[in-house]
Amino acid sequence: MTTTTRIIAAPVVPSTGALRPLGVDEVHITDGFWAQRQRVNGSATLPHIEHWLEKDGWLANFDLAASGTLPAGRRGREFSDSEVYKYLEAVAWEIGRRGTDAAFEARFRAVVDRVAAAQEADGYLNTNFGRRGQGARWSDLEWGHELYCLGHLFQAAVARERTRPGADDGLLGVATRAADLVCSVFGESGIQSVCGHAEVEVGLAELGRLTGEPRYLAQAALFLDRRGHGTLADIEWGRSYFQDDVPVREAEVLTGHAVRANYLAAGAVDIAVEGDDTELLGALGGQWERTVARRTYVTGGQGSHHQDEAFGEDWELPSDRAYSETCAGIASIMFSWRLLLAEGGGSGADGRPDGRYADLIERTLFNVVATSPSDEGTAFFYANTLHQRRPGEPAPSDVMSPRASSSLRAPWFEVSCCPPNVARTFASLAGYLATTDDDGLQLHQYASASIRTRLADGRLVAVDVATRYPDDGTVTVTVTDDMPEATTISLRVPAWAASASLVLRAVDGSIETVDSSPGYASIRRAFSSGDVLELSLPMRARFTVPDPRIDAIRDSVAVERGPIVYCLESVDLPAGAGAFSGLQVDRTADPDDRGDGVSVLLRTASADAEAWPYTTTDAAGPDAEPVEAPLVPYHRWAQRGPSTMRVWLPVHHAR
Amino acid sequence: MTTTTRIIAAPVVPSTGALRPLGVDEVHITDGFWAQRQRVNGSATLPHIEHWLEKDGWLANFDLAASGTLPAGRRGREFSDSEVYKYLEAVAWEIGRRGTDAAFEARFRAVVDRVAAAQEADGYLNTNFGRRGQGARWSDLEWGHELYCLGHLFQAAVARERTRPGADDGLLGVATRAADLVCSVFGESGIQSVCGHAEVEVGLAELGRLTGEPRYLAQAALFLDRRGHGTLADIEWGRSYFQDDVPVREAEVLTGHAVRANYLAAGAVDIAVEGDDTELLGALGGQWERTVARRTYVTGGQGSHHQDEAFGEDWELPSDRAYSETCAGIASIMFSWRLLLAEGGGSGADGRPDGRYADLIERTLFNVVATSPSDEGTAFFYANTLHQRRPGEPAPSDVMSPRASSSLRAPWFEVSCCPPNVARTFASLAGYLATTDDDGLQLHQYASASIRTRLADGRLVAVDVATRYPDDGTVTVTVTDDMPEATTISLRVPAWAASASLVLRAVDGSIETVDSSPGYASIRRAFSSGDVLELSLPMRARFTVPDPRIDAIRDSVAVERGPIVYCLESVDLPAGAGAFSGLQVDRTADPDDRGDGVSVLLRTASADAEAWPYTTTDAAGPDAEPVEAPLVPYHRWAQRGPSTMRVWLPVHHAR
Repeated sequence: MTTTTRIIAAPVVPSTGALRPLGVDEVHITDGFWAQRQRVNGSATLPHIEHWLEKDGWLANFDLAASGTLPAGRRGREFSDSEVYKYLEAVAWEIGRRGTDAAFEARFRAVVDRVAAAQEADGYLNTNFGRRGQGARWSDLEWGHELYCLGHLFQAAVARERTRPGADDGLLGVATRAADLVCSVFGESGIQSVCGHAEVEVGLAELGRLTGEPRYLAQAALFLDRRGHGTLADIEWGRSYFQDDVPVREAEVLTGHAVRANYLAAGAVDIAVEGDDTELLGALGGQWERTVARRTYVTGGQGSHHQDEAFGEDWELPSDRAYSETCAGIASIMFSWRLLLAEGGGSGADGRPDGRYADLIERTLFNVVATSPSDEGTAFFYANTLHQRRPGEPAPSDVMSPRASSSLRAPWFEVSCCPPNVARTFASLAGYLATTDDDGLQLHQYASASIRTRLADGRLVAVDVATRYPDDGTVTVTVTDDMPEATTISLRVPAWAASASLVLRAVDGSIETVDSSPGYASIRRAFSSGDVLELSLPMRARFTVPDPRIDAIRDSVAVERGPIVYCLESVDLPAGAGAFSGLQVDRTADPDDRGDGVSVLLRTASADAEAWPYTTTDAAGPDAEPVEAPLVPYHRWAQRGPSTMRVWLPVHHAR
Repeated sequence: MTTTTRIIAAPVVPSTGALRPLGVDEVHITDGFWAQRQRVNGSATLPHIEHWLEKDGWLANFDLAASGTLPAGRRGREFSDSEVYKYLEAVAWEIGRRGTDAAFEARFRAVVDRVAAAQEADGYLNTNFGRRGQGARWSDLEWGHELYCLGHLFQAAVARERTRPGADDGLLGVATRAADLVCSVFGESGIQSVCGHAEVEVGLAELGRLTGEPRYLAQAALFLDRRGHGTLADIEWGRSYFQDDVPVREAEVLTGHAVRANYLAAGAVDIAVEGDDTELLGALGGQWERTVARRTYVTGGQGSHHQDEAFGEDWELPSDRAYSETCAGIASIMFSWRLLLAEGGGSGADGRPDGRYADLIERTLFNVVATSPSDEGTAFFYANTLHQRRPGEPAPSDVMSPRASSSLRAPWFEVSCCPPNVARTFASLAGYLATTDDDGLQLHQYASASIRTRLADGRLVAVDVATRYPDDGTVTVTVTDDMPEATTISLRVPAWAASASLVLRAVDGSIETVDSSPGYASIRRAFSSGDVLELSLPMRARFTVPDPRIDAIRDSVAVERGPIVYCLESVDLPAGAGAFSGLQVDRTADPDDRGDGVSVLLRTASADAEAWPYTTTDAAGPDAEPVEAPLVPYHRWAQRGPSTMRVWLPVHHAR
């Protein structure tokens, strides 16, 4: 177990756990897929978000609060404050990632000043409650989102203080004053209830870790223990929507609103870790396991209900009604990452870490989070369907979308949680690549990167990673400083990489090949600067078949290549391929994967007659000539305009 | 074509069309499946509804309006007035069906008095708008439902006047005063918009037909022409929710909210028929055809979105997320019935009526409308899922359900449109059994019944129908009065009845066998009292396979027997059958159908491991021993308490 004391510039810094996170100042992504996303995030997405926060008046709400003129003129939904806080968090990570940046620094401080001016004398901070003409403070815990907003405020303050300790911009003081108020209002003898939208738990936990104030963590634990006892009102979708039907430590699987469920689970891991509550941690591990086995899309996406943005029941994973909210993907990463830090890779059948948490994080990053933003970083998917049945309608770049499930990326939403959530995730992404323990370094995600950190005993660990991943499966890790003491370097071998290999080529000429079955491949030795570890992951397109209990995709296959899920878009259909709805895939040969793209053979299933569709005889259309159709990575879908799309392809059966 | 002048006690009485409806005083259901439903409806459901209308204050809202104290004390949603009107309509039909009933008559008049007292001097009638402290009249056409409520008022007044002409209870005057106001406010130079929820169109059309007032029909036509041009606001789900995205005559398929879409289409048929608008009628026929081919569940249910209670895209028919609202089923019957009256049976490939409309009506009646109420008639399904993944929670008999999609029947809902809609449908059901044209009688639905009517030229047509349908496929039609002139009697042969036979056994000893392929089997001759027509429909359980374009049920089969869809309920599973989610059906033999029940052979598909469910190899569990499991008619599901349930059964494939 590793115990952390110094400040680490990472979103989650447990005081104890199997693995220790690295800060965004210790890991730099230097090139490739994620470096490009980070560049666009900093240059385009962050200004885009600030533009919309100003344009929609969500920032100005704080000015109105400061001038005492609310509620007149207030704009945005009840939770719009939180988007400002997530924006602040994203900018804090961006400043931490870039090092000095005067422009971002000035913008950050200007926004903090406006937020701080709106805080009331007793620490209360929310532009939507508490004034004459507004609802009373804490009067609508189901839907008011006051504590939810504060959770995001706390995370922003933590990000700032961890990346610029003692920056003295006032944000940490704003956060602690608000947190003190929460502890006083909702403490042991305070209001005996919880917020309808979990989030304050992770915020309080991290603020407690940062400041050392034990009340914050105790308050988070109080919120956790209170939930699940029906203190919130029953609603149309039941109390499971708020996770207020079953106490967290008794639940068997994540249920209800998928973002709420994952935020809550993430906070619960924090509480379990800090309280050394192995029973709670075990329950959360079990919930993660069943949720991943039965309630997760092949993309890593979670949530199959549009209506309540919720998980469905076990095996309820319709492609066309996949909600798979971008924020739920991010929240799932938050949950998985905390379990990874607490437990290590995850425990395989042989007791060896099996990489399950990092596997899911990778899948979700590439196929949910990376899918959300446009190439330009100024339009976003909120929901991430796996099957688009009708070409979407273009979303004008200057119009706020009323639709969460818009079928093309939109610049901004009435409920605009996803864009700033993507932004804070990309800005802090380097923090999810690697960890250390007392014995060495673990690489969980692959990107060209420079890593330089010290283990708990002060030993320097420094490597450069070079890779074209995920286009290519070769990952080259070059040691950039001597490590004279025996040190372990571990590289994750994803579950799909059944024939991976890891080879050490030392500067002294020695070569070592190590076990590299899925899980983590490790080499323990003294390293010299210039030693090279080369991981080769088999990067070939493959057909993936679903568990037969997933009704919605029975007798269908998906195509994956490495961590990337592919899809078929109608814009790529060759002439004569037939109606999109009737296409079937020829599964008799593997997908074609010539390096410049992936393609499959398609056949058309049936004619387009308008007849009663339920008959007594199996459809037996002619075995049409197959046509070859290219597939594209799912995260690239709808980057070329409106199209229909599907991830799961029905299998053609010869007559 | 038939032209109607006299008053017919039926919900829909076109002035012209292929077929003429019969009144509830001309057709009496005497025994069997529907007679039992009608008995329960009259003895239990109607009192149950009045009880809840009083208990929830939805009736008292009218009293508050009359005493000028609104909005204080108003209870219920913005459309609660409409439930009172549907209740009145149901009672009107019930009185018409029963003949004299002093108790119902008194209750009817008492409610009418309370409604009438709330009407304002200019004819305006709505308890939710127009007073100080309420929204202004017509200020929220998207969600206010004012015109929707009035449409139901008009239908109630029409039902009353057609069953008790000149009853002088005041209801017709209330309706015409309100209709006059609508024509004045929304006329050619009035408010250029429509109601978010279609319904006023059918109400105005029928009120126009009843009263002969041409303005009402013209106003209905105005509403129809205005819709589809985006006069209503854009909302999260788009204007298609209100059918305000595409003009009705340009639409290719029903879209958006399934009840609204069908009510609108029904009204559009009325407008097309009265305006002799064959182009519009043709467009509606095409919409019906594509909707039935691509957007309808095997039960006849429509609507696959919970969120917006809407149709999905073509082929988007998930069993587990089927919304299939009871009211949408009723609205679909309204649409189909109007097309049947206008066009006849529907035009088959050979030009002969193919019974498509009556087929769908039958399917929807038995599998949607009959599914909604409990045996006791005091609890209802609002949504009708085809796959219940988790046993439902019992709904207490004295608690209003906040959930439309409650998993067990509930006594009443916050949005309680379905119970009174079922009640008015059952009370008027006799009106959907048979029609006439200038040449004779058509039987569309089968129930033991007594039918006595006159053709346009005054000829008497009188028959008794005796049948145990749908348990048994024999329908015996006995002529009860001589028909000395050649008259045609036609009996519908459902599409599933490929080997039906129709035999005439005349009292003179002659026997005639006629063509009885699906569509309508007809005999034209002079009939004598005592002549018997015997239709034999092949009533054997069969496997039904879906169009391969319906993704959600690929490689699955349903079991049907006659018009009845069957389902598997977990309460019927024998020990050792395995997890419900993993069950597959052995399709190598037909379903077992020994007269006392239907059963199939089941096998368990796969183990219950909690692993990532997307792999590279097909699951190949052991070929477990099959177990025999009984199925029950879908309309009987959840009559025995909580269970899981599925209509579509995955097919087992031997390894």
